[in-house]
Amino acid sequence: MSDVLVERDGAFTTITMNRPRRRNALSRDFLLALTGAFREAGESDALGIVLAAEGPVFSAGHDFADMAGASHADVRSLLLTCTELMRTIQSVPQVVVARVHALATAAGCQLVASCDLAVAADSAGFAAPGGKGGWFCHTPMVAVARNVGRKRAAEMALTGDVVDARTAAEWGLINYAVPAAELGKATLDLLERATRGSARSKALGKQALYAQLDRPEADAYQYAVEVMAAASQTPEAQEGMRAFLEKRRPDFPA
Amino acid sequence: MSDVLVERDGAFTTITMNRPRRRNALSRDFLLALTGAFREAGESDALGIVLAAEGPVFSAGHDFADMAGASHADVRSLLLTCTELMRTIQSVPQVVVARVHALATAAGCQLVASCDLAVAADSAGFAAPGGKGGWFCHTPMVAVARNVGRKRAAEMALTGDVVDARTAAEWGLINYAVPAAELGKATLDLLERATRGSARSKALGKQALYAQLDRPEADAYQYAVEVMAAASQTPEAQEGMRAFLEKRRPDFPA
Amino acid sequence: MSDVLVERDGAFTTITMNRPRRRNALSRDFLLALTGAFREAGESDALGIVLAAEGPVFSAGHDFADMAGASHADVRSLLLTCTELMRTIQSVPQVVVARVHALATAAGCQLVASCDLAVAADSAGFAAPGGKGGWFCHTPMVAVARNVGRKRAAEMALTGDVVDARTAAEWGLINYAVPAAELGKATLDLLERATRGSARSKALGKQALYAQLDRPEADAYQYAVEVMAAASQTPEAQEGMRAFLEKRRPDFPA
Repeated sequence: MSDVLVERDGAFTTITMNRPRRRNALSRDFLLALTGAFREAGESDALGIVLAAEGPVFSAGHDFADMAGASHADVRSLLLTCTELMRTIQSVPQVVVARVHALATAAGCQLVASCDLAVAADSAGFAAPGGKGGWFCHTPMVAVARNVGRKRAAEMALTGDVVDARTAAEWGLINYAVPAAELGKATLDLLERATRGSARSKALGKQALYAQLDRPEADAYQYAVEVMAAASQTPEAQEGMRAFLEKRRPDFPA
Repeated sequence: MSDVLVERDGAFTTITMNRPRRRNALSRDFLLALTGAFREAGESDALGIVLAAEGPVFSAGHDFADMAGASHADVRSLLLTCTELMRTIQSVPQVVVARVHALATAAGCQLVASCDLAVAADSAGFAAPGGKGGWFCHTPMVAVARNVGRKRAAEMALTGDVVDARTAAEWGLINYAVPAAELGKATLDLLERATRGSARSKALGKQALYAQLDRPEADAYQYAVEVMAAASQTPEAQEGMRAFLEKRRPDFPA
Repeated sequence: MSDVLVERDGAFTTITMNRPRRRNALSRDFLLALTGAFREAGESDALGIVLAAEGPVFSAGHDFADMAGASHADVRSLLLTCTELMRTIQSVPQVVVARVHALATAAGCQLVASCDLAVAADSAGFAAPGGKGGWFCHTPMVAVARNVGRKRAAEMALTGDVVDARTAAEWGLINYAVPAAELGKATLDLLERATRGSARSKALGKQALYAQLDRPEADAYQYAVEVMAAASQTPEAQEGMRAFLEKRRPDFPA
């Protein structure tokens, strides 16, 4: 059985972390396999990607078996590999939604924070326990702090305590917290809503969204105006506008 | 009847979008008229501005009748015109509050996000449906994403679904959601509270707030210290401090 | 009795603003004394710092007795002194939690926003009344706006109205609002949770968190990867990883 399961069902690809005995810890090989799976799905005609996990833990973050005693250069390389996975999730054209059934900690929590959308079961939890453990969750907090507020980011990073799914939804770390029995359906429902219409338009949209989010507003406008003006000339934008004016459903190019 | 109604009542100017048959869609002429109305109100002695709308929709955003088939250069010019309206709202010295009675979508939602404050009726809704329709709401998301969190911005932009007023208030896109019958009163109450005291001080304050919001904290402090030190020498600051020390109401210069 | 009380109890230092007759207003001398107290505690082996206050007001912000009639250069210097206090709170290696029992306004509210964490009694309140009073809270809004959303920041700065503790917790300005009788216990509980594990790791963590928070995500990752890779070589990170792998409690170096 592979560590990374990739399953295409209709328009959606599900990428499942399947290293349950290692709590889906993110070893170098596992990071590379996940990045590869996202890249491959990214180049496919799938419209959406679900990031899921098998086992009692969604992901426990870095694999300390890789890290203990590793040199500075090796750790740095591993962190760059990990960052590359996070950025790949943001850069693939598909909508990516995390389906979180259980605990997501450290870089596992960062994975959730890095997906475009996230749905969690009430049984899930989120934590950044690195500081408590001796190695602060520096890189996970880049993603986590951009989802929750400053005080909440500090609380997660400093206490390392688990935030339950309801609280995570209130804080904006995830979109929805649902009963565990409804997790699959709720994730699929969100992904279907998020992938209606023009896939090309949404692909450009999500990529441009990340490019402008953290910039001063004037810079962000400069960028967004250029992207949006260029996008107006695409067949999907033209078809969308014509369909709206003609009061019919758009028929987007494949 | 003009497309843009401007009504001065006491200290406040109400700018009403009055293109109900076009769902207050933001054509080039309409954008220019709105920008002109904000500029004129901005140069007046009004203390506050309400942005309101007539008809079944607050604003449906760009007018596709303008856009379908338009050249890249024309669309770019229109988007710059639209951005200019948003920035004018932020740059006028008055406090600007959106009074949202109905659906605000795309650049109409951006309008709400760009006002300093916003009150909505429970009957209102907010959406960024561009991606669904073939032309992603790139520029609207500059404003919307700076009001709501990252995951919520992604959900709005990718699903295009309508967020109700209560949820919009929880997410920070608007300040208050109220029963429709109380919308006028609640808007006025907020604007009165937001315009008490020194108008000059608040004008400088809101302008400086937007200048520092998205910058790294150290940069923001450098800027804010200089503005605040300069502002300390103004008659209104001096009067405010003296009045506080003398335990009397301040008498601000006109 | 000193204006600034410093009390060490076990692992924690409590710095108490003790100028109740002046509503703990932040005069130059008081700012310098507070900064000195934070620096001294920062160099001690304390693990956490509580910022507390005596009297009916947590802190009323700047002392207008210092400011009225002061020259531009003097006010500028005072604001730089005040900013230095805020940045000192963020730069000391200890976790700093505000214990807010009463009203915190203007630079007093900024103090709360600048602490890593904050717990408030239901009897507390938060306001930025400068604009109402003639001198806008420019520098306080740098800190406050980075804790709450944009619309909420505008509402606080423009209305000057008091936000109650429950609302402040919902907005992310503080971590918890609790009944007044439980304030001490709740603050201590949060600080104990926030200081478990490796103090050195958390010190680096909080300092690095502030360095990356407001930067574009790609810049933040570049920075965080370097810090985290370097941190992996520290004795506490190595011990933390080994202890995890050996399923024992870590024994961090002092």
